[in-house]
Amino acid sequence: METDIIIRFIEILGTFAFAISGIRHASSKHFDWFGGYVCGVAVAIGGGTIRDLLISTTPFWMTDPVYLICTAVALCFVILFRRWLEPLNNTWFVFDTLGLALFNIAGIQKSLEFGQPIWVAIVMGCITGSAGGVIRDVLLNNEPVIFQREIYAMACILGGVAYWLLLTWNVPLTLTAALAFLITCAIRFLSVRYKISLPTLHD
Amino acid sequence: METDIIIRFIEILGTFAFAISGIRHASSKHFDWFGGYVCGVAVAIGGGTIRDLLISTTPFWMTDPVYLICTAVALCFVILFRRWLEPLNNTWFVFDTLGLALFNIAGIQKSLEFGQPIWVAIVMGCITGSAGGVIRDVLLNNEPVIFQREIYAMACILGGVAYWLLLTWNVPLTLTAALAFLITCAIRFLSVRYKISLPTLHD
Amino acid sequence: METDIIIRFIEILGTFAFAISGIRHASSKHFDWFGGYVCGVAVAIGGGTIRDLLISTTPFWMTDPVYLICTAVALCFVILFRRWLEPLNNTWFVFDTLGLALFNIAGIQKSLEFGQPIWVAIVMGCITGSAGGVIRDVLLNNEPVIFQREIYAMACILGGVAYWLLLTWNVPLTLTAALAFLITCAIRFLSVRYKISLPTLHD
Repeated sequence: METDIIIRFIEILGTFAFAISGIRHASSKHFDWFGGYVCGVAVAIGGGTIRDLLISTTPFWMTDPVYLICTAVALCFVILFRRWLEPLNNTWFVFDTLGLALFNIAGIQKSLEFGQPIWVAIVMGCITGSAGGVIRDVLLNNEPVIFQREIYAMACILGGVAYWLLLTWNVPLTLTAALAFLITCAIRFLSVRYKISLPTLHD
Repeated sequence: METDIIIRFIEILGTFAFAISGIRHASSKHFDWFGGYVCGVAVAIGGGTIRDLLISTTPFWMTDPVYLICTAVALCFVILFRRWLEPLNNTWFVFDTLGLALFNIAGIQKSLEFGQPIWVAIVMGCITGSAGGVIRDVLLNNEPVIFQREIYAMACILGGVAYWLLLTWNVPLTLTAALAFLITCAIRFLSVRYKISLPTLHD
Repeated sequence: METDIIIRFIEILGTFAFAISGIRHASSKHFDWFGGYVCGVAVAIGGGTIRDLLISTTPFWMTDPVYLICTAVALCFVILFRRWLEPLNNTWFVFDTLGLALFNIAGIQKSLEFGQPIWVAIVMGCITGSAGGVIRDVLLNNEPVIFQREIYAMACILGGVAYWLLLTWNVPLTLTAALAFLITCAIRFLSVRYKISLPTLHD
């Protein structure tokens, strides 16, 4: 019961942080309010929507209006408190990382519930967490940042592999989920803290 | 019966106008005929395809070849009568707006028939009417115009809200659809006539 | 039995060549390893995934890990043997064309098995063969090359029309598939050899 509330709370926080990220990127291209909203929605629900289409189920946001409302609140927030956004960058980073890790684990668990094998579930977790940012960059006519800098999607993959190992070792499900969540967060935090990134391809 | 013919007529007109829009944009990037056809198809059927995937049904254009044929006719038209396109800009604008409004209402009604709640149906109407233009801009490597200028997608949303209110007031279904169609058209026409647009986001 | 082995062999070759194409394009934008992998995956499985979503079935790569593994091997290959890639351009071109033709025919046959009419199946064959390259170009923030140069998607369409005609003439299924495969290959090879391309649109 209490766990449910905590999960819901992180989910709203993460959705809000993801939406803020989309709307801020839209601001830098001087999109109008509608364009900002769509970019916010794209980041907040894009990854989960692709996951749900791939595992053949109705996209999650179509059964609960909270995600679209949350993005609308984020849009009002950006419009009204524009000056407050910059100093709060560390806060957004924390929310965003919590959201990434939660969406990763939620994506893995939903895929397993729908009968997918674990390697598909890990891919779906990664898509849930990081595909929204790619859609945002495509809509904004930018090269996707997660393909160039920082450990972002890889944190999902590694968290997913941890989930797999813990499952194999018969660790209880709740503990497995919690640990994989923390590992995803930790990898993201540490990679940003110590400026770790993947090698670049050369032509 | 007569209503069916009118609806079919507007649908063909709208598909034709949407396809022309995609092909003309492709021309400005010097795409070849195939590229032009794909951009035309993207605008004409892109929005409805996304809607159908989201509400879990077979995309509408896969059950009736008229949409692909209509786009092929539009391609021939652009190739043969290139010089006539510019002076007809007002005509395209009228056709495009009729198409937008019809696709909006059709998207709302189809979603309701598939058991979606009204707020999802309104979003689906907006996607049906305006997502095709976004796909076109993504394929052409442009920033989506509907995120920056003019009331386009918002006309769908407002027409959809009108649909919702009229339903709530127990207005008969045909009248509801007709009024919401006219409201969508009117908002688009008036916003262009009086150069009304949404505020822009700043960073 | 032997046919199955040949088909599987061409499928792996084609997937490998498609993945190499995505990863090389990603290299030219200095994406990191993860970005390269995603671009490789996009080309290798993107078209088939769109086809499977449109005909309402689980994407093929989610039931067999060979496609993701094949892309991982391609990534290692590009990283380790970067200098060998350029001199092998003709080899990649041959593999890529074999892959294009096979994915085209496979897309047509799968769509027919799922009860689609032949004109939809031809479109699906074309999507299976060529949509992956479009996704790659969208992710890389380039204008899609297949909309501008060379006969690529049109080779699929013409191979598909050949398949249709052969079916109508009651040619046995295996022979129909083999001939349509060869016709797709031949059109692509000849169009590159003799620099044949579609006319360009002008504004």
